[in-house]
Amino acid sequence: MKILVLNAGSSSLKYQVFDMETQQVLVGGLLDRIGEAGGEIASHQEALARIVQHLQFAGIAQIDAIGHRVVHGGEYFKQPALIDAEVMAAIRAMIPLAPLHNPANLAGIEVSQALFPGVPQVAVFDTAFHQTMPPVAFRYAVPAELYTQHKVRRYGFHGTSHHYVAQQAAAYLQRELADLNLITLHLGNGCSATAIAKGESVDTSMGMTPMEGLVMGTRCGDIDPALHFYLQRETGLSPDDVESLFNKKSGLKGLCGVGDMREVQALADTGDTDAQLAEAMFAYRVKKYIGAYSAALGQVDAVIFTGGIGEHSARIRAQVCANLQAFGVYPDLAKNATHTAGILEFQQETATLKLLVIPTNEELEIARSTAQQLFLRRS
Amino acid sequence: MKILVLNAGSSSLKYQVFDMETQQVLVGGLLDRIGEAGGEIASHQEALARIVQHLQFAGIAQIDAIGHRVVHGGEYFKQPALIDAEVMAAIRAMIPLAPLHNPANLAGIEVSQALFPGVPQVAVFDTAFHQTMPPVAFRYAVPAELYTQHKVRRYGFHGTSHHYVAQQAAAYLQRELADLNLITLHLGNGCSATAIAKGESVDTSMGMTPMEGLVMGTRCGDIDPALHFYLQRETGLSPDDVESLFNKKSGLKGLCGVGDMREVQALADTGDTDAQLAEAMFAYRVKKYIGAYSAALGQVDAVIFTGGIGEHSARIRAQVCANLQAFGVYPDLAKNATHTAGILEFQQETATLKLLVIPTNEELEIARSTAQQLFLRRS
Repeated sequence: MKILVLNAGSSSLKYQVFDMETQQVLVGGLLDRIGEAGGEIASHQEALARIVQHLQFAGIAQIDAIGHRVVHGGEYFKQPALIDAEVMAAIRAMIPLAPLHNPANLAGIEVSQALFPGVPQVAVFDTAFHQTMPPVAFRYAVPAELYTQHKVRRYGFHGTSHHYVAQQAAAYLQRELADLNLITLHLGNGCSATAIAKGESVDTSMGMTPMEGLVMGTRCGDIDPALHFYLQRETGLSPDDVESLFNKKSGLKGLCGVGDMREVQALADTGDTDAQLAEAMFAYRVKKYIGAYSAALGQVDAVIFTGGIGEHSARIRAQVCANLQAFGVYPDLAKNATHTAGILEFQQETATLKLLVIPTNEELEIARSTAQQLFLRRS
Repeated sequence: MKILVLNAGSSSLKYQVFDMETQQVLVGGLLDRIGEAGGEIASHQEALARIVQHLQFAGIAQIDAIGHRVVHGGEYFKQPALIDAEVMAAIRAMIPLAPLHNPANLAGIEVSQALFPGVPQVAVFDTAFHQTMPPVAFRYAVPAELYTQHKVRRYGFHGTSHHYVAQQAAAYLQRELADLNLITLHLGNGCSATAIAKGESVDTSMGMTPMEGLVMGTRCGDIDPALHFYLQRETGLSPDDVESLFNKKSGLKGLCGVGDMREVQALADTGDTDAQLAEAMFAYRVKKYIGAYSAALGQVDAVIFTGGIGEHSARIRAQVCANLQAFGVYPDLAKNATHTAGILEFQQETATLKLLVIPTNEELEIARSTAQQLFLRRS
């Protein structure tokens, strides 16, 4: 079985074809600057036509199903969904919650329905894994009607990644996922932490939108909710300006001028105190979420690092894990500094709480979920 | 020595006179609805004149000093300050950070300077105790110039209360405060948690304003920073409407209609699911801060409950302390349910982490700080 995984952004289209027997990528790529002045590709339609050419060129004659990443599934989607008119309408209804992402995801689905008529298509939602959160974790302390009438609540994102690494951890530890309490840390350009109890997400740091929680590349994460009003009064910024400031000019970039952790660390090593602060704050905020989620879970079997920073920065992992002995966190710094393409286990010999680095693979998880939906439909 | 402590709000004036030899209150009271239609008192000037009458009536011939609660001292005030023109100007400069509170506090100082000419006056700041926080805790991940040019940072509040109960804990435990790591929980109408390392505040849940952090009576505490933009787009609320919504219609009141924890609990006991959620969320969010601050501190000697809810709701304390054995938190539920006017210690016999209920007394702390400033001036 061959599955095409599509991740459509407003001006980009990422694709990978998986052979599900081997779970290997056959072809893949990224088309960007779609529809932009100076870009080579006029539309998502044209981008997908190029992808079809690529598949033909690679000798892939038939696609059995297409899996689409969809950012926001609201409370409607607790699982991946085989796409039909009702599913399309529900994704469309969620646009106010994800005004940039869901329209792009819908465009990706529509052009692939046109180019691959009759091929089953599955939507896999970034929010779905977190739908198991209890109300104490997903509600905000704002008027109840904002939830009942306006869908205001914590949804959480990166669900595909958190779920994938949790499953990988269970397989690696030879335990049932349903028996494990985990803290999963997806630290990439966007960052989120998830508390997983008995295999289910019970709390996560991103909220109604991906702006809440940890310090990110350019997003602010947790701030005082009155900052907006102060900024508008003191600086004359409009609400739109403030939104853009918090999304695109904050995080690591806001603190020290660069948003990529590798550049932050390089700058910190030259003695730049802003970059040193940015790196230290990043780690401190992750550490606080480990504490908060340990309290939420009561007992933790493993802390899992994933995402670009989580997988590749031993230095950040060491800072996050420092001085957490009271939590059972005992990193072996030599093991932590080891490079490996697979799973790295780096707690000290005598520690019971496992510290793991697990490379994420959201595309593979989408392909698997897609295959599973096909299987469910047939059975 | 007799010290008058004044806490001036925009339409209220609270006062207490302490005999510093006995540390007892000689007289005290609250004048409110000042300047309001239907109120009996036209101005803060008139309110203070009534207080002078009250003192004369009580036979208090002389006041040696006046201590004023001032909400926002910004980064300028790391200690209480003997009031002079420079101090007044600095409190005035902080008005943008506390547009409701600092002008009222200034009005209180000005009328008492006029009515008590020559009597030394001391300003004691809600923010001062938290000025020991390191940048990783007090900075937000927003553009650095918002800090350097617009004073955007975490300041923290309730400092007088957190400091007072920390000192009380040290005395009770017969330890030096400088040797203690504490988590202090001020749970009243406003709520905040503070991480205290070696006697100094190193992190606190309120931020640039008192809106951030825990669930409060009517304030939202931590929310997604993008909620504002969504609400403005979806409901047409203006920024001012949203600010008022988050300040006055959120928290417990927003979740279940009543903002007083006693009413919330009474409602919860009738089976009201909104009130049950409000109570559970309140406790869950406190629990998460205990976890986060345990991670920040590495090791914790005591968790201290204070404020109206912290002192009087054994039920909330029990919920907060539940399932935290991994943190060394072992409440003795029978002890926890004990009523006492003084300090209550309620951990189990074998536990090393102390659980304490300590009645706060911000007025006494202000009086002590005021006396100390006089002493420093003379020595």
